[in-house]
Amino acid sequence: MSRHSLAQIGVDAEAKADNAGAEVEVQTGKPVAAGGHDHFVERNGLRYAGSHLIIDLWDAEYLDDMGVVELAMRRAIRAAGATLLHLHLHEFQPSGGVSGVAVLAESHISIHTWPERGYAAVDVFMCGDAEPHQVVPVLKQAFRAGRITICEQLRGVV
Amino acid sequence: MSRHSLAQIGVDAEAKADNAGAEVEVQTGKPVAAGGHDHFVERNGLRYAGSHLIIDLWDAEYLDDMGVVELAMRRAIRAAGATLLHLHLHEFQPSGGVSGVAVLAESHISIHTWPERGYAAVDVFMCGDAEPHQVVPVLKQAFRAGRITICEQLRGVV
Repeated sequence: MSRHSLAQIGVDAEAKADNAGAEVEVQTGKPVAAGGHDHFVERNGLRYAGSHLIIDLWDAEYLDDMGVVELAMRRAIRAAGATLLHLHLHEFQPSGGVSGVAVLAESHISIHTWPERGYAAVDVFMCGDAEPHQVVPVLKQAFRAGRITICEQLRGVV
Repeated sequence: MSRHSLAQIGVDAEAKADNAGAEVEVQTGKPVAAGGHDHFVERNGLRYAGSHLIIDLWDAEYLDDMGVVELAMRRAIRAAGATLLHLHLHEFQPSGGVSGVAVLAESHISIHTWPERGYAAVDVFMCGDAEPHQVVPVLKQAFRAGRITICEQLRGVV
């Protein structure tokens, strides 16, 4: 990841780690008492497992930059108030596309990028008190997305 | 994972590995030329990134059995003709719920289980020539699901 692109998403202070490897693996802990995974939520008169956002980014940049993808995911998780348990990133050649998945105490975030199309497919599934919608401005800023579409699905409605 | 539950999903021959640990990690390779990840598909007059299935399992069993979850994911991936790059499973306590994510050359599969509800939330995102619908009978059999709902979303329709 270049200093340039890090600066562009405003994360110079986090630029110390070398995130340019083709595989990034982060393991943060053993089995936890899940913050919100083990109970359905009750909100607006509904009882359900969690909220699943299907997010498409178009006219986006830095989609072949593993460092930007990783930082965007970490910032998105933080913004949502979620707890990261495991993060894995994979770089595809020759396109430079990146697939990333983050396992959370509250479920997961995934991202798959098509740099040659300026397109990224993200999904954010969060249970409990996490706020999945908070990831949207983070993604928009990180990838300078020109257009974003969001579809929300409540999972496991009783 | 018990021999009993393995037998129930018909995978005795695969029962050698000890999959009962709280964390399971499989890393299968470095950057690959993706089978289908780096190109949009054209099908039925549409051009798009891939098909995303949102699958809810109800009245399901073995949802607290990491071994069943892992084998179901591996069999689902094989049934779909997809290529596994990375698999991670996490067990939650005290519920016994399991979160699993598989990064594929064709995108990903995730599963999150709520054993106390008999409920599992699965999503299957696959690009290229993989056949995501093939995972449904595998999941139904593995978890003896009484009811399954499926929602399909085409991602990145141009």
